[in-house]
Amino acid sequence: MESLLRSEIFEQPAVLRRFLKEEAANIAAISRGLSGREIRYVLIAARGTSDNAARYGQYVFGAFNRLTVALAAPSLFSIYQSAPELRGALVIGISQSGQSPDIVSVVDEARRQMVPAIAITNDPTSPLAAAAEFTIDLRAGTEGSIAATKTYTAELAAMALLSQGLSRRAAAANPLDEVAGWMERALESEPAARAAAEGLADINRCVLLGRGFNLSTTFEIALKTKELAYVAAEPYSSADFQHGPLAIVEDGFPVFLVAAGEKMRRELNALRTDLKERKARVISLDDDGTAGGPTPNWRIPIPAGIPEWLSPLVAIIPGQLWAYYLAKARGIDPDNPRTIRKVTLTR
Amino acid sequence: MESLLRSEIFEQPAVLRRFLKEEAANIAAISRGLSGREIRYVLIAARGTSDNAARYGQYVFGAFNRLTVALAAPSLFSIYQSAPELRGALVIGISQSGQSPDIVSVVDEARRQMVPAIAITNDPTSPLAAAAEFTIDLRAGTEGSIAATKTYTAELAAMALLSQGLSRRAAAANPLDEVAGWMERALESEPAARAAAEGLADINRCVLLGRGFNLSTTFEIALKTKELAYVAAEPYSSADFQHGPLAIVEDGFPVFLVAAGEKMRRELNALRTDLKERKARVISLDDDGTAGGPTPNWRIPIPAGIPEWLSPLVAIIPGQLWAYYLAKARGIDPDNPRTIRKVTLTR
Repeated sequence: MESLLRSEIFEQPAVLRRFLKEEAANIAAISRGLSGREIRYVLIAARGTSDNAARYGQYVFGAFNRLTVALAAPSLFSIYQSAPELRGALVIGISQSGQSPDIVSVVDEARRQMVPAIAITNDPTSPLAAAAEFTIDLRAGTEGSIAATKTYTAELAAMALLSQGLSRRAAAANPLDEVAGWMERALESEPAARAAAEGLADINRCVLLGRGFNLSTTFEIALKTKELAYVAAEPYSSADFQHGPLAIVEDGFPVFLVAAGEKMRRELNALRTDLKERKARVISLDDDGTAGGPTPNWRIPIPAGIPEWLSPLVAIIPGQLWAYYLAKARGIDPDNPRTIRKVTLTR
Repeated sequence: MESLLRSEIFEQPAVLRRFLKEEAANIAAISRGLSGREIRYVLIAARGTSDNAARYGQYVFGAFNRLTVALAAPSLFSIYQSAPELRGALVIGISQSGQSPDIVSVVDEARRQMVPAIAITNDPTSPLAAAAEFTIDLRAGTEGSIAATKTYTAELAAMALLSQGLSRRAAAANPLDEVAGWMERALESEPAARAAAEGLADINRCVLLGRGFNLSTTFEIALKTKELAYVAAEPYSSADFQHGPLAIVEDGFPVFLVAAGEKMRRELNALRTDLKERKARVISLDDDGTAGGPTPNWRIPIPAGIPEWLSPLVAIIPGQLWAYYLAKARGIDPDNPRTIRKVTLTR
């Protein structure tokens, strides 16, 4: 029987095409609706996979809209009941299900304080959508797997489009239109992702390193690795990693480098050299097979030439496949991970 | 020979007393200097241990000053060179050494955009202090250990005082004055921290869970555990942990719960029950020995009755001792951790 998770991973190019086709006009309208509103910064509330999409928002809104993005501490709103003053904020709640009370509480507070709030959700009838002034519908179809995949890339696309709309960057030839094709080519890296997973089937811990736009990818691959393969996989900004945690790298320690994009290449190549000197086992997920420095133990390629700001929509895909095959290599059924629920109702 | 690290851990009550005595007037003056400036949110730039202090800032400025706190993505300023517009921001750079170029770049940008910027550093002659409009001197004395301890608690105290100053909460009897005494009592938990460490000397991975104000403590104990004992120790908000990563907990999996403070007690007690059902090995660092639910495998107490917002200055101390003894139990010299530098110059 075909795996539901794997089939949802492979659905992503089609989901993206549908999202761009059916939701672009709504996002353009939301962007127009926001013009004239005072927006000094963005406050995003999200958990789990959606929180990793929020990390992408930090870079896309920062780089293209010159907006600082704060990630909400939901407990300030729900448990401590001392919500910040939100004047000047654009609030965005991201949740596949739209159910989590703590995320809804942040959007509720935005409405109470009369600042604009956008729900990004796969369920436009959810409490989150009901609470928000504007809703972006992910239109990903039912996500049957416990592990989120297609809703994640749809969430990234939602933020990319919103960023374009807010900055009025939308051009006649939209670079987002090319992403689905790159995703299809990235799916062709399935054998490479599988080989890396099978080569590391014995691990019980690893770290994942990336920076900038692909910090989101780094965190999301780590989350999939934990959810599906039960490996203690910790993600870091490659800069933060050098401020202390580097100490844990010893002979054979598994390190997964996410090195897509021009700007971070030099830094991540230097880090790969350093890691190899420490005898780490290195996986490199990258768009530059010809890069200098020592050869990684495994390489998982994505197409070259993707603009860095769009590469997270593509780079995650072989990362999802890596986690899928790591689970299988460890004797775990990735369609039935233990203990986690699709909808988690944290306060 | 006495360990330098352990002696710096034990210095913390004295460092705090000195900081409160010598720096309170400066912080009050900074607070006055900021009145009338437009502050809609706080943007903190920091790395490593100082970034964990920034997490404390998220809660203290959120709960008492109603200010949203964003943690800066320094690469937007340094590598992508598309710094956000900072109008409405109060920028705070935190760095023990004051040297890291990426942190300095955020504060530089604040000055360029003429928004207020505060440096919190142990070196008032550092580039960070030179770049900032205001400087808070941690006055912790030379920190000789690679692993930061006394500068961390001084950084927390700096933010607590600044929050008080900005909200004009400073009362005749300042609750901060009691913290050094609580720290001294927390140091008495050294045998309990040591017993937990010796009981878990065989681990190579663990997770640490906390929430709210003590999310900072959770992240900082995890960092010390990695730096000193080379254990892959991943910290989580206990709410985030339930959105997926919970899957990694299996028979014998080590979980360190940071459960200080009233507001989060119910949630963390419920989680302890859940973790014990999954047969995790649980350490509880808490202020409530009589709490219901199953007994943890090890308990590290801190004094009861500390206001939750001040408990991070106290709870970290036995956590530092845990990491110190875990290193020793694993045959590592905590005064000479491998591979990390005191000053890390990331872009």
